[in-house]
Amino acid sequence: MEDCIFCKIAKGEIPSYKIYEDKDIFAFLDIKPFSQGHCLVIPKQHFENIFDINENTLKKVVVVAKKISEKIKNKLHADGIRLSQSNGKAAGQEIMHFHLHIIPRYEGDGIPMYPTATLHLPQANFGELKKIAEKLSNK
Amino acid sequence: MEDCIFCKIAKGEIPSYKIYEDKDIFAFLDIKPFSQGHCLVIPKQHFENIFDINENTLKKVVVVAKKISEKIKNKLHADGIRLSQSNGKAAGQEIMHFHLHIIPRYEGDGIPMYPTATLHLPQANFGELKKIAEKLSNK
Repeated sequence: MEDCIFCKIAKGEIPSYKIYEDKDIFAFLDIKPFSQGHCLVIPKQHFENIFDINENTLKKVVVVAKKISEKIKNKLHADGIRLSQSNGKAAGQEIMHFHLHIIPRYEGDGIPMYPTATLHLPQANFGELKKIAEKLSNK
Repeated sequence: MEDCIFCKIAKGEIPSYKIYEDKDIFAFLDIKPFSQGHCLVIPKQHFENIFDINENTLKKVVVVAKKISEKIKNKLHADGIRLSQSNGKAAGQEIMHFHLHIIPRYEGDGIPMYPTATLHLPQANFGELKKIAEKLSNK
């Protein structure tokens, strides 16, 4: 898509710190990283979000994300890894080209990252949960 | 796995607000939700994390996550959706059975959820990024 920065990065029209590339998938370091090794996995084809992307491409994205996660663990000695993917401005998506964040975590890195146990969220009203489950159920 | 709460939920030994089930995958509402419709997608088989899970099962998890995301958008009128998956205590993982959070977002819900633009992270040192990219590159 014209004027999409991630399309341009995938085509090499904008330089990036590339860490993975195959026919369909591209991955590169985030230049405003949360932590060492923070990177993004994107499909080369332009899809906006989880609603838009097709199943086949989505599967390819996550298989590459798994491989990169293993590499980050082994090569950068990350203690943990967070995968995060936002859809829509209300969810914090800034670039409207599907992208999956791989965020390495290191013991004591102090990065504020939710959801975590630190929020101590209250338990929901069970009557309310039952209603929602009925709306979403596949049965 | 014995003593794994998510194994027990998947088997129905512990009750849950189920929203999806097939041969391999199970999804249910989080009882301490960030937002209305916050749910978890898990493989029925016990895998600890992204390193442990096999590619085939991982693909099944994300395809179900896509379907549930669409349902949440349509039935609960979510304005956005965040997918999040943690590996290791350092990344905030609490239950050591692979699970993918689907967190609906609603305009103005005020949930503090990173990564977002609000952190205004600094740009990384490019020399440092180059070194990391070389370590992680698949070329």
